[in-house]
Amino acid sequence: MKQRDGAPRLWIKIDFAGRGQIGPGKIRLLRGIAEQRSIAAAARAMEMSYRRAWLLVDQMNKTFGRPVVQTHTGGNDRGGAELTPLGAEIVARYQQLLERAQSQSDGKLDELAALIRPAD
Amino acid sequence: MKQRDGAPRLWIKIDFAGRGQIGPGKIRLLRGIAEQRSIAAAARAMEMSYRRAWLLVDQMNKTFGRPVVQTHTGGNDRGGAELTPLGAEIVARYQQLLERAQSQSDGKLDELAALIRPAD
Repeated sequence: MKQRDGAPRLWIKIDFAGRGQIGPGKIRLLRGIAEQRSIAAAARAMEMSYRRAWLLVDQMNKTFGRPVVQTHTGGNDRGGAELTPLGAEIVARYQQLLERAQSQSDGKLDELAALIRPAD
Repeated sequence: MKQRDGAPRLWIKIDFAGRGQIGPGKIRLLRGIAEQRSIAAAARAMEMSYRRAWLLVDQMNKTFGRPVVQTHTGGNDRGGAELTPLGAEIVARYQQLLERAQSQSDGKLDELAALIRPAD
């Protein structure tokens, strides 16, 4: 993603009318789980409690009606976890959407940033 | 803004690298102040405390380095308030940005929504 230093940045949350929301926090957690292959390790890297991470995963499972993360060694994931194909697809599509919105909005973002009077 | 019923919706927050953020809550507050001509009335309409509303306005003043709201009858705005030209411009440009991002992202939003399995 192209990103100039100091340039204003978009944060995007998608609200699935009555089915929950997906935003930067959940996407970051999914990425962390993919990298760390563990919900607990991903939570730790985000300084988030395991309980909170598990809750966010559970919310996404409910939003999409299917699991976004697959855990090994039974119900407790401390043994390991990975994204399901659905979870990986959500991350990829969110990233595409964010990049598209950011690149299409650059002019508008710059106009807003131009309203800022620098501190002197 | 075109908005299909039940269609996923974008929430956009703009992060001005180190200078604060503008998102739906602050924009809604500015709109409310413009309509109600009062910070207190706008806060009430949003079920937000007066103190919280004032804090958000103050944050925006600091982000932009100039006032976004002008109050009458001295420091306490209970007498009346209105957006400065800067405040009005922020609302307008945010709205343009949101509409552009939403319309440019429609395909991607639909792809994400298509991953949802309807509850049955």
